[in-house]
Amino acid sequence: MHIALDAMGGDYAPGPIVAGAIRAVQKDAELRVVLVGDQAQIEPHLAQAQAVRDRLDVFHCTQAITMEETPVVALRKKPDNSISRCWQLLAERKVEAIVSAGNTGAMVAGGLRLRLFLKGVRRPGIAATLPTLKGPCVLLDVGANVNPKPEDLFQYGVMGTMYAKQILKKDKPLIGLMNVGSEEQKGHDLAKETQTLFKNSSLKDNFIGNVEGRDITKGVCDVIVTDGFVGNVVLKVCEGVFDFFMKMAGKELLGALDKEKHLAEGALQNLVKRYDYHEHGGAPLLGIDGICIICHGSSKERAIENALAVAAKHAQAQLNALIVQELEASPVLAGTEE
Amino acid sequence: MHIALDAMGGDYAPGPIVAGAIRAVQKDAELRVVLVGDQAQIEPHLAQAQAVRDRLDVFHCTQAITMEETPVVALRKKPDNSISRCWQLLAERKVEAIVSAGNTGAMVAGGLRLRLFLKGVRRPGIAATLPTLKGPCVLLDVGANVNPKPEDLFQYGVMGTMYAKQILKKDKPLIGLMNVGSEEQKGHDLAKETQTLFKNSSLKDNFIGNVEGRDITKGVCDVIVTDGFVGNVVLKVCEGVFDFFMKMAGKELLGALDKEKHLAEGALQNLVKRYDYHEHGGAPLLGIDGICIICHGSSKERAIENALAVAAKHAQAQLNALIVQELEASPVLAGTEE
Repeated sequence: MHIALDAMGGDYAPGPIVAGAIRAVQKDAELRVVLVGDQAQIEPHLAQAQAVRDRLDVFHCTQAITMEETPVVALRKKPDNSISRCWQLLAERKVEAIVSAGNTGAMVAGGLRLRLFLKGVRRPGIAATLPTLKGPCVLLDVGANVNPKPEDLFQYGVMGTMYAKQILKKDKPLIGLMNVGSEEQKGHDLAKETQTLFKNSSLKDNFIGNVEGRDITKGVCDVIVTDGFVGNVVLKVCEGVFDFFMKMAGKELLGALDKEKHLAEGALQNLVKRYDYHEHGGAPLLGIDGICIICHGSSKERAIENALAVAAKHAQAQLNALIVQELEASPVLAGTEE
Repeated sequence: MHIALDAMGGDYAPGPIVAGAIRAVQKDAELRVVLVGDQAQIEPHLAQAQAVRDRLDVFHCTQAITMEETPVVALRKKPDNSISRCWQLLAERKVEAIVSAGNTGAMVAGGLRLRLFLKGVRRPGIAATLPTLKGPCVLLDVGANVNPKPEDLFQYGVMGTMYAKQILKKDKPLIGLMNVGSEEQKGHDLAKETQTLFKNSSLKDNFIGNVEGRDITKGVCDVIVTDGFVGNVVLKVCEGVFDFFMKMAGKELLGALDKEKHLAEGALQNLVKRYDYHEHGGAPLLGIDGICIICHGSSKERAIENALAVAAKHAQAQLNALIVQELEASPVLAGTEE
């Protein structure tokens, strides 16, 4: 497995990014990582990794896109940026996967520009995994496509189903459509038309209809389909509410407990470890011909290590081949075509 | 203060709804409540309230809209339903406010049908109050208008500002626009055009630009403007994540603690009391000529009591007169008109 890692991407790059790569190759003897970025900044962090140095390459480039830059403008103005170089390595089949904690918009735009799409895919979508009372569920799209058509959302259902089967190990994934109420006629036109597509498709038996915001964490389904605007907001609201209640619970418990205060702190720390969005292994951009994992901007060593492991799992499961098969088997049967 | 309360609305109606009304009039000697609904079902719950019975009237009607019914269809098929009767009492100025925990869509549609709007208001919006690290903030719209125009969102900013000033007691409320990133050019057309409207308006000094999902609970601003689809999803996601983490934290602490387990349980109970969305006093439909408070479907006694108190506060603050003034003072200055 050969992965290109954007060494310049994210709030803490390049130190913890390189450290994550070192840990990943230490754990997985089959893994080779190409660190893409400024060689002078990367090399010092590799000094301690002599034992695995032969599986850590550096692909030097002179530019990096910051988190604040406008993706399309930055990609044009900085042709030698680390994100574009990652995509280039993927397009040239020099790597099987690319991973970045950098500017998400630039990462997505880089892929759209190359149109490196799987056969039959209209628009790639980012799939985020969320915890629920009944195990993980996948929400997509969380930000690649803020103006999707119903047909795009339908394909997110197909791709999300394959992801839930292969990566989350769900036997027969149920699909829900994010909406503002459970009744069929709820919501805007996009929701109503997407509903019709699912009901007329070969996935109809797995489609449970509308799900509301409060249903996500209940685990009512395994795949939740929505547009990139709503999905992105939902993902970040989950993160914000989690942080908020961890702070509030900590304060409240600190005030209430005495001798067992440290035990309570340990319990809350366990929750943080289990659910913290910063620690997650990144979200795949599904629909790409290749593997593309997008990490949280605040990713450090452990998150990058996890993301590299997720990319490897993705390849082993042959997810892309299965997505292409399933898109052929579950075509869009109704609704308006572009 | 005279309020019509939909006695048939909500998952637990009519018992806890009537009980909430009794408690509210017991606490506020100026309050009169008209219980709107089936007299035969309401009367038994009033038996214990002889001391305040003279300030609790019953307005009999024969029909009720269920939570699952399609709002527009139900309003047409059931002309004598409790929600329409509440609106009628408001339109006839027999009450100053109406409160319901029933079908939100029917409540909104009932108001839109009457076009009982404040002067200058394009479309009413539901304003929900959310907890943040820096005190409450108001999010609107959370479900009245899933297809708004930029001008509607701008007015939500104006109305939300007056709400934050008068009800949340914020001195100089800051307004943020819900979006998928902090950079100006982020998001869909609705977001971009709304951004332009705020920047060219007399509210520009209070407008902080885009806010992301994770910013809400940080309290970066006092008023968050969004469309009814996103707002509704956000509100319900907050609720779901809250429930999820309360369950998880309870389990984790139960496993970790010994002698002080009961203290931890008490601390978590305090959090639930403070933040539980089911206990909140309802959300006003702003922009209505009159006061309209929409409660959570799961509202019980305490939530209804709170909602009636909120309606009274609303009237005392003369919020509506101030909204009309502010809409005149802060007109939409740029962008496309319908």
